[in-house]
Amino acid sequence: MTSPVSLSLADAMQSVAAEIDDLFDQVLAVPDDPRAVLYEAMRHAAIGGGKRLRPLLVFASANLFNVGRTAALRTGLAIEALHVYSLVHDDMPCMDDDDLRRGKPTVHKQWDEAIAVLAGDALHALAFEIVADPETHADPFVRAELALELAKASGPAGMAGGQMMDLVAEETTFDLSTTTRLQQLKTGALISFCLEAGAILGRVPPEGRRGLRAYARDIGLAFQIADDLLDVEGDAEVVGKATGKDADAGKATFVSLLGIERARTQATMLVDQAIAHLSSFGAEADLLRAIARYVVERDH
Amino acid sequence: MTSPVSLSLADAMQSVAAEIDDLFDQVLAVPDDPRAVLYEAMRHAAIGGGKRLRPLLVFASANLFNVGRTAALRTGLAIEALHVYSLVHDDMPCMDDDDLRRGKPTVHKQWDEAIAVLAGDALHALAFEIVADPETHADPFVRAELALELAKASGPAGMAGGQMMDLVAEETTFDLSTTTRLQQLKTGALISFCLEAGAILGRVPPEGRRGLRAYARDIGLAFQIADDLLDVEGDAEVVGKATGKDADAGKATFVSLLGIERARTQATMLVDQAIAHLSSFGAEADLLRAIARYVVERDH
Repeated sequence: MTSPVSLSLADAMQSVAAEIDDLFDQVLAVPDDPRAVLYEAMRHAAIGGGKRLRPLLVFASANLFNVGRTAALRTGLAIEALHVYSLVHDDMPCMDDDDLRRGKPTVHKQWDEAIAVLAGDALHALAFEIVADPETHADPFVRAELALELAKASGPAGMAGGQMMDLVAEETTFDLSTTTRLQQLKTGALISFCLEAGAILGRVPPEGRRGLRAYARDIGLAFQIADDLLDVEGDAEVVGKATGKDADAGKATFVSLLGIERARTQATMLVDQAIAHLSSFGAEADLLRAIARYVVERDH
Repeated sequence: MTSPVSLSLADAMQSVAAEIDDLFDQVLAVPDDPRAVLYEAMRHAAIGGGKRLRPLLVFASANLFNVGRTAALRTGLAIEALHVYSLVHDDMPCMDDDDLRRGKPTVHKQWDEAIAVLAGDALHALAFEIVADPETHADPFVRAELALELAKASGPAGMAGGQMMDLVAEETTFDLSTTTRLQQLKTGALISFCLEAGAILGRVPPEGRRGLRAYARDIGLAFQIADDLLDVEGDAEVVGKATGKDADAGKATFVSLLGIERARTQATMLVDQAIAHLSSFGAEADLLRAIARYVVERDH
């Protein structure tokens, strides 16, 4: 039997995922001109599949501050566009060289590398176009802050910096603290921004965002540990991408550094800690609590 | 003897270029951690060389509306970061496959393709971080509008869309109107944004930007025709990149479509027309007038 909380998580996940697909479908209408292939590649990468965990986090965080549904969903859409761009580039032969993503051929397999570069670049720009658009939020201060924080999460002090460390990790074996730092940049920065975005949309000043930031840090790390466990133990069919790649590449992961059991214990501990950071919120944070548990319990 | 106008153009170019290099040096300080190579690659691509035509255009446009120097230069810096990112990706083997850029090895030659993907991505994000930063402009409305217009100029309806058309151009021969559209997206959108950015910084409403937009459209096209002429007639040593590539790739260019003589006449006509669009401005637009002439007279 599923508990009421996980039921409402499943409902929220499903409705957010459907709305994100709808919104991508709208903003990526294929033009009848020589750019058509670019839009088709963006759609291939962005629409269908994916847990839409990031938009769900924005939605759940925005839920704490009475933010309008459109603002939350469009901000989630922007973050998902950014996430998808990073996957398209990361899958390229010169990076992780993956053939399969979300159960479909990666963009460079379906088309070619040039299209993968461009589709990724175009999704990257699209993310900023969405957050800076008055349709997302009427207050220019909110739009400017979203754009600034999104850019930081994407740039050399965020995702791109983490990807760089990931390249270096192929040649050196990082210790636990460097591996943690790598993951905080590569996946943690954008996950943190999801939570922060809800607060920005709700015009909560930075000092009021501390609990959410701590929650974000913990679930970001738990998410990565769970990913490393899936990489070792998961079924490629269910996970939707190749597994066992990090171990094959000789990269340090939380599993290689801690062992399977300690990694699992650590992830569970982080989830408990994340939930504890939400203590100042009531039932309105139940969705965030359910997401925290889901992060380590998922099988893909 | 150089005329006073071109003298002041040379001065402005030199001082803007020096300040852009300084600013890149500041925002791209190399961290003492495994991300160092990423920053070094970004610096390699961004610092030194380059005409800095785009920052100069922002500066010249901002000059019409009493915009502060820091705001204009930082906005120009953001646009240059975006321009440089597009060059790094465009030079990659799967795109134009160029070994030489601004007289130096391209990023993928100096390092490798993975670093080129990441350095480009990081410069792309940096551009948005700079425009959305309160240091660039105190008014959030200005920052949000800069971010929105920059994103449009970069995305599938701007630069990325133009690059896509450029890929298609390798397989089809475009006519003059499709080639013009390609160039308006690939290089014209960002050049237009340079002029518009000056007006946004000066809080000029959209209806007051018509003359500048028309000027931008004309010099953008003239710039591209001049580039096509240099590609045919220029010396790779002076131009700083390989020449004759478009003709070799069988791509339609303004020169292949119009012939050298008509292309040159067309470029000159566009420059005259661009200058005519500035008639409502006085001496404060002399720098823009000088830039328009320079665009077709340059040898690199």
